[in-house]
Amino acid sequence: MNEFNYIKKYIYPLDYNSLIGNDAAQITNLQDKLIITKDILVEKVHFFSNHNPKLLAKKSLRVNLSDIASMGVKPYGYLLGLILPSNITEQWWKKFTSGLKEDNQQFNIKLIGGDTTQNNNNSIIISITILGFTNHSSLERSKATAGDYIYISGNIGDAALGLLTYHNIIKSQNCHYFKNKYDLPNPRLDLGLYINNNNIASSCIDISDGLIQDIEHICQSSHVEANIYINKIPLSKEAKIILNNNPQLLETILTGGDDYELAFTSHPKNDIKIKDLSSKIGIKITQIGYLSNGCNINIYDHNNQKITLKKKGFQHFSN
Amino acid sequence: MNEFNYIKKYIYPLDYNSLIGNDAAQITNLQDKLIITKDILVEKVHFFSNHNPKLLAKKSLRVNLSDIASMGVKPYGYLLGLILPSNITEQWWKKFTSGLKEDNQQFNIKLIGGDTTQNNNNSIIISITILGFTNHSSLERSKATAGDYIYISGNIGDAALGLLTYHNIIKSQNCHYFKNKYDLPNPRLDLGLYINNNNIASSCIDISDGLIQDIEHICQSSHVEANIYINKIPLSKEAKIILNNNPQLLETILTGGDDYELAFTSHPKNDIKIKDLSSKIGIKITQIGYLSNGCNINIYDHNNQKITLKKKGFQHFSN
Repeated sequence: MNEFNYIKKYIYPLDYNSLIGNDAAQITNLQDKLIITKDILVEKVHFFSNHNPKLLAKKSLRVNLSDIASMGVKPYGYLLGLILPSNITEQWWKKFTSGLKEDNQQFNIKLIGGDTTQNNNNSIIISITILGFTNHSSLERSKATAGDYIYISGNIGDAALGLLTYHNIIKSQNCHYFKNKYDLPNPRLDLGLYINNNNIASSCIDISDGLIQDIEHICQSSHVEANIYINKIPLSKEAKIILNNNPQLLETILTGGDDYELAFTSHPKNDIKIKDLSSKIGIKITQIGYLSNGCNINIYDHNNQKITLKKKGFQHFSN
Repeated sequence: MNEFNYIKKYIYPLDYNSLIGNDAAQITNLQDKLIITKDILVEKVHFFSNHNPKLLAKKSLRVNLSDIASMGVKPYGYLLGLILPSNITEQWWKKFTSGLKEDNQQFNIKLIGGDTTQNNNNSIIISITILGFTNHSSLERSKATAGDYIYISGNIGDAALGLLTYHNIIKSQNCHYFKNKYDLPNPRLDLGLYINNNNIASSCIDISDGLIQDIEHICQSSHVEANIYINKIPLSKEAKIILNNNPQLLETILTGGDDYELAFTSHPKNDIKIKDLSSKIGIKITQIGYLSNGCNINIYDHNNQKITLKKKGFQHFSN
């Protein structure tokens, strides 16, 4: 079976745009504003060669969905770019598309179109462009102001510890928990939508490259500085156990990527609303610091002493 | 200088969406319908390793623009995905972005966003998602009917001869002409827009994978068959010289890819309008056959005898 037949057999049955077969997809009944973004995942750079294709499909979608979440809009659908080695198996297609199908349903998104082509070497590359529409404004990084509180959804660092677990750098009885957090991020779409539509957040970003680096992006865009308290940073009980035994891993937790939680800022007057929201939608939301006028990222330890990190986050050259 | 600095230095000065710096781009004041498509170009599969980066940038944009042309809409902008080897030079960035800049101006399009990431081997991969908006309907492959004439813009086969020239399979005094046709397609945006907005075309496709194969796509979508006359197929005078000396290259001309001309169908009553249009916009438009009821692609030689081709076109697994 050649690759075109794999596409027919495995891609077409997905909820593909009904106008498939044209040179481009068509989307009608547009809302006021289109939100669009692209994220690429490369084998051996962003995922392991033996990565489960079903989980890979889901992670590829979810890192893109997380960008949509951080803009505070509802995702609509996506274009799928697949660059595949010639020895890709039918089994791979079957598993990969089963992952797409499950997440299409879970997140109510559709496959709109795409392109599949052969790679000249043995690696898999996945390039997804995702779209969302809104009649409301969307969240931006540049609207935070001094005095705003900084909030984080969920926990920080589990995915970075998952990567260390995969690399056998740490050993833990919770290895599956950490690996799962690395493999399968949970895009905070409901949270993003809520804090946008209710005008709660002044800025928002998803934490993909590390907490400190991503908050710095907000600071740079909004011309403010951040004050972050280590002891306020939300950690899972599993991460706390690791950190108790390996205090040097604090930096990994603060700067490791792949959390895909939302960091957002809000005026202090919204603090009670945010606590209510947290219980309402069942997502932990933690205030970890505040913004002030200035150009730094100030990180305070348990004794309220400023600390300096060796690195800020995952260095790649995504924009 | 690291890659992020190259992006700052060379990508940001392009007419990048003003909301750069967020997790996704935002586009407002939408028209009724969004047209969106993605095309990927892989080094050693779609272009040579020593390909001039400026021409590569233009070709990457233009193959995508050609898809928009075939839908009969105006292009708006694009997301640029770059997967680059670690040894990419500043010179490469400079040349590549100069190509983008020139074509952004020429086609009045803007860079909306994108992602740049490192490849784990030494090849360059370019993944572009391009968008257009329209208040009109767009052209489709599925609306052709039996009796419609089949028309082609420009000439067929020059790009395929260009590829053979690069591979030293043919030698010609017009080698630069052919190579240029392969390197730099000319997306037929004005033509697509005109035949759509004036309701002239019943279906349209861009010829990227070979004349015969692409016309077959229209036939399959519209449930008709095509009758194509070899002696009507428009050839450049340069291609005619080659073909006179090498008649066996006819199949290459009919099935080679990379023409990026438009093939469209239209009711015979529009024939005069189309001739007028051709002189009005200065693009050669040639009727090469007609559609009938059936399931075949019938190709007739100079003696009106049906001929059979060994292959139909470039086989890859793009959809």
